[in-house]
Amino acid sequence: MRPDPALLSLNTATVRAQWKLDEIIAGCERHGIRGIAPWRDQIAALGLKETKRRIRDSGLTVTGLCRGGFFTARGRPGLAAAIEENRRAIEEAAELSAQCLVLVVGGLPDGSRDIAGARALVEEGIAAILRHSRDAGLPLAIEPLHPMYAADRACINTVAQANALCERLGEGVGIVVDVYHVWWDPELARDIARTQARRLLGFHICDWLSPTTDFLTDRGMMGDGIIDIRRIRGLMEAAGYRGFHEVEIFSANNWWKRDPDEVLRACKARHAEAC
Amino acid sequence: MRPDPALLSLNTATVRAQWKLDEIIAGCERHGIRGIAPWRDQIAALGLKETKRRIRDSGLTVTGLCRGGFFTARGRPGLAAAIEENRRAIEEAAELSAQCLVLVVGGLPDGSRDIAGARALVEEGIAAILRHSRDAGLPLAIEPLHPMYAADRACINTVAQANALCERLGEGVGIVVDVYHVWWDPELARDIARTQARRLLGFHICDWLSPTTDFLTDRGMMGDGIIDIRRIRGLMEAAGYRGFHEVEIFSANNWWKRDPDEVLRACKARHAEAC
Repeated sequence: MRPDPALLSLNTATVRAQWKLDEIIAGCERHGIRGIAPWRDQIAALGLKETKRRIRDSGLTVTGLCRGGFFTARGRPGLAAAIEENRRAIEEAAELSAQCLVLVVGGLPDGSRDIAGARALVEEGIAAILRHSRDAGLPLAIEPLHPMYAADRACINTVAQANALCERLGEGVGIVVDVYHVWWDPELARDIARTQARRLLGFHICDWLSPTTDFLTDRGMMGDGIIDIRRIRGLMEAAGYRGFHEVEIFSANNWWKRDPDEVLRACKARHAEAC
Repeated sequence: MRPDPALLSLNTATVRAQWKLDEIIAGCERHGIRGIAPWRDQIAALGLKETKRRIRDSGLTVTGLCRGGFFTARGRPGLAAAIEENRRAIEEAAELSAQCLVLVVGGLPDGSRDIAGARALVEEGIAAILRHSRDAGLPLAIEPLHPMYAADRACINTVAQANALCERLGEGVGIVVDVYHVWWDPELARDIARTQARRLLGFHICDWLSPTTDFLTDRGMMGDGIIDIRRIRGLMEAAGYRGFHEVEIFSANNWWKRDPDEVLRACKARHAEAC
């Protein structure tokens, strides 16, 4: 069954090369896209108050703020600063009434080979901001990233691992499932089914191109790659997820070079056809 | 504790840009490297009989033949041809008294999004060659590949998944653990510990550079990246593995451009220092 078009959300990275945030908000309105997930640097450029005003006026739902996390880069000595930065992100997300703050948790500390230590540091970091986020009524959404990012971006790499972390941390923290990061996982069906519905905080879509030529900026538009997105949406819905479907495409050589109105039209069409 | 230098093996891909197979065999002898894992195209170029003669004369142990597998590329219609090709690889491996035939099982069939189907096809393919390999006394070694290769090279991506496959297939099939493919796995310690010693057929070493700039040919020399190789060797040994440590480095912009004698010296030094 085709997805509800009203559930389409635009992660602003998808057209970040072409448009500033005010143009992206206007673009969503013009194309009838109802959700948006802005990045903090774009918000800083437009100003938080102005961002809030424009999003409110446009009637957009903020499906997530991108992003918090990165607890590990400077190891334990850097944890306090990372926690402080995450507190600011929580306040920003709450100010925008975001449905969650997306956490890209961080990889290995510089010069470290201790992935278990990095994972422990992430847990400590999230635990340290959790009271603040609970007080703000703002869910934290751990995003397991593809294992190819384990060294430099996120050492939480599977739904199972994110779920175990949520269990230990308790209320106020859940997960975002991005098809790009999890499609390969042989235990994906089992692990999404095991996730409590209240912990399913987001569903991100794009596609995996085969071959992929760049680790970061060669994501595909839904339908152009090899991910069975509809199947994964089915797993999410069977587990009780009823939220938005957020398109997030980093594409230096294709979609970032196109007319952004064309990109938004493609997002809508492919959401209907391939998700 | 430092590894036994006598356990170092050279996967011939490590110097394939500089040397032909006869030169690699001579290089191993010259540098006191006791194991070798040749690729089939190199063997074809030198000739199987000549390869066998030179390897026997040099006293090298063939720690694996690279490679069999690739059951899926043309889907079910291509399976019979893939099985036939694997039978030839088994005969070649047996002729060289290889310790195993390494299976890179294949990714998604062209145009397919059905990863579960690809995995089933792999199982069917291995099952179909298993009597032949058992008759030849030649263990098949499933190599779980990093999830970034799930689409185009191998849809078996974790030790847990490979183990489950081995359990279903029975005797005559085991796994190769390559640190490059598995270092990120949060369940690695558990899953290596669960592997029966007789199923641990190989241990491949190199390093994960951070950042990595190419999906295929940017592997690092042991010690240059972020993998805790010694820890993973410890897991292997605790599980009962006593075999070789096979260096396999694809490195278009670094090691493939160096004097191959220098590369072999580096392999030996880094094996001692970083493994």
